[in-house]
Amino acid sequence: MVAGVFEAPASSANLGPGYDVFSLALGKPRLRLGIVAEDSDEFEVMIKATGKYGSEIPTNPDENAAAKAAEAVLRYKKIRKKLSITIDASIPPRKGLGASGAEAAAAVYGLNTLLGLGLTREEMVELASAAEPGQHADNVAASLLGGFVITHRDEFGFSVLSLKPPENLGIVLIIPDVKKKSTAAARKAVPQNIATSVHVRIAAETALAAAAMAQGDVDLFLRAVLMDPFVEPARADAGVYGSGYTAQKLLQEKQELYRRFGVSLVISGAGPSRLILFNRTRNMGKVGERPVDKALEKVVQGLDEDEIRVLEIFETFPNTTGCVKIS
Amino acid sequence: MVAGVFEAPASSANLGPGYDVFSLALGKPRLRLGIVAEDSDEFEVMIKATGKYGSEIPTNPDENAAAKAAEAVLRYKKIRKKLSITIDASIPPRKGLGASGAEAAAAVYGLNTLLGLGLTREEMVELASAAEPGQHADNVAASLLGGFVITHRDEFGFSVLSLKPPENLGIVLIIPDVKKKSTAAARKAVPQNIATSVHVRIAAETALAAAAMAQGDVDLFLRAVLMDPFVEPARADAGVYGSGYTAQKLLQEKQELYRRFGVSLVISGAGPSRLILFNRTRNMGKVGERPVDKALEKVVQGLDEDEIRVLEIFETFPNTTGCVKIS
Repeated sequence: MVAGVFEAPASSANLGPGYDVFSLALGKPRLRLGIVAEDSDEFEVMIKATGKYGSEIPTNPDENAAAKAAEAVLRYKKIRKKLSITIDASIPPRKGLGASGAEAAAAVYGLNTLLGLGLTREEMVELASAAEPGQHADNVAASLLGGFVITHRDEFGFSVLSLKPPENLGIVLIIPDVKKKSTAAARKAVPQNIATSVHVRIAAETALAAAAMAQGDVDLFLRAVLMDPFVEPARADAGVYGSGYTAQKLLQEKQELYRRFGVSLVISGAGPSRLILFNRTRNMGKVGERPVDKALEKVVQGLDEDEIRVLEIFETFPNTTGCVKIS
Repeated sequence: MVAGVFEAPASSANLGPGYDVFSLALGKPRLRLGIVAEDSDEFEVMIKATGKYGSEIPTNPDENAAAKAAEAVLRYKKIRKKLSITIDASIPPRKGLGASGAEAAAAVYGLNTLLGLGLTREEMVELASAAEPGQHADNVAASLLGGFVITHRDEFGFSVLSLKPPENLGIVLIIPDVKKKSTAAARKAVPQNIATSVHVRIAAETALAAAAMAQGDVDLFLRAVLMDPFVEPARADAGVYGSGYTAQKLLQEKQELYRRFGVSLVISGAGPSRLILFNRTRNMGKVGERPVDKALEKVVQGLDEDEIRVLEIFETFPNTTGCVKIS
C-alpha cells in the first residue's frame, strides 16, 4: 500500500484569442488530492470529496474527473489497483477555473509519482484529458505543468509547451455567482466556421501573446490577448457569461478598461469568471489606489448593474510549478 | 539635393500556418535602391530599373512599388520633391520572395533617412504597405525591420513585432522557373472561411512558432511551421505552386522530408519558391552529405518529375538588419 497527498493549481483556459490553445495555471485557488493505492486483482476506485466545494463534486466514479483520469492511467499501464481518492475541493466548480482538470491532473500526477510509472509530460496530459469533456487538454496541461501552456495536435502527435510567465504579470480573479450552463453548452455557442480574415487576426494575436510570454513582455501580452473577435463575443451573445452581458457590453468594457487603466479583461475558460490581467510594475502604489483597483471597481459596478452577485474576488498570480507532492 | 543608396532584403511571407501573419527577412537575395531627391513645387517621381531582373520591373510610377511607396510617404508628410529612384533588381519578381515589398521598404526607409522624417517603425510599415496588393504588411515589415516579423491590426491600430531568429536556423531557397499567376489569383485560391477546428490548430501553430523564435528553439520552430492545414493545400490544389503539385503531393513531401531528414519544407509567400528550413547545428558535416542536402536532392528530384525547371538554388540565412543605408 502506498499513499500521498498532491496539490494542483486552478487554471484559466483560452485567455481571449487562445480558444482551445492557451491556458494559464493560477497560484490560487488550488486543490488537494489524497491517494491511497492498494494491490488488488481488479481495478476499483472510491471517491470522497471534502472541503469548501466538496458537496458540489460528483463522487460516482463514472462522473468524477479524478476517477476517470486514474482509470485511464491504470488501463494505459495495464495495472490493477484499488484506489481511494480524497478530494479537498477548494476550486469552485463550473466557474471556468478548470476545477475538474485540476482533479484529473492531480490524480494522474499522483499515480505517476506514487507508482513510479515514468509517464512523459505528454502522456500525463493526454491521460488526464481523457477525463475532460471533449478530451480537451488545455486546463489539464496547465494544472499538470504550471505556467502558460500551449497545446497542439498534428500529424506527428500531441505536444505541449509550458512557458514561464514574467513575474510582473498580475492577475485579479472575479468569480461571479452565475450557474454556468454546461461546458458542452458553452462549446455549442462557438460557431463551427470562422471568416478567414478573423482567423488571420487571431493567429497573429496568439503568436504575439506567445512571443510576449517567451520574452517576458507583459505589456505586449496584455494587448495581444485583449480583443478576441470570435469566441468571447459569440458566447457573450449566447448568454454563457451571464444574461445581459452581451458581446457589445463585453467588448466595450474591455476597450474602456484598457484605454483608461492599461489592463486586459478576459474571460477565464468558458466563464463566468473574469480575469483582470495587469502589469504589476505599473501598479506599485497603495492597494485601492492602483489603476488595476480602479479597473476592478468598474467591473464590479458593471456586475452590480446587471444584478450579478459576486462569489469571490481576490488577487492571484501565475503558478509555475504545476502539480506537486506535498506529503 | 540629397542622395543615398539603400539595401533591402528579400523576404518569405506566410511560412506554413502564418498566412498574412509571419514573414522572415532573407540575407540573400537583396536589392539596392538609389534615391536622388530635389526640391520641387510638385511631386514627381522617375523610376529606372537595372540589374539582373531590371527588365521585369515596371517603370511606370503608377505600377511601380517603390514609386507608390515614395508617393505615400511624401503625401503623408505633405512634402513636395522630385525623386529619381534607381532600382538595382537582384530579387526575382513574382517568385514569392517579396521583391516589390523590398522595393517599397527601401523607398520608405530611404526617404525617411535622407529627409530626416522621423517616421516610426509602424508608420514606415504602413506607408510601404500602401504599395502592396491588398496593402499587405508582411513582406514590407520583414524587409524594413529584418528578422522574423509578426504583423497585427486591431481596434487599437497596427503593430509589428520583429524577433531575432536563432543563429542555427538554416535556409535553403529553391526558386522554380514557374510564372506565378498574380498574387491576387493566389489570394483567391484561399477559401473565405475556415472550420473552427482547423483555425484552432493553426492558432496553436503560430503561437508555438512565435514562442520558438523568441526562445531560439529551432527544432520547435521547424515542427510548428511544417504542416499548414489550410492555405498551402488550397493553393496547391489551385495550381498556384505549379501544375501537378497538388495538396496531397505537397503534404506527403513535407511529412517525408521531416521524418527522414528533420527539415521543414514550406512555400515562400504565395510561391512558387520553396524554403527548406533546417537546424544548422544538426547539419554540421560536409556540404553534399548533410541531411539537408539529401532533403534538397529529394525536392529537386520531385520538381524534375513534375518537369518544373529550377531557376536558382542557394543557401541563405535570416537577415536581422532590415533596410540599411550603404552609401
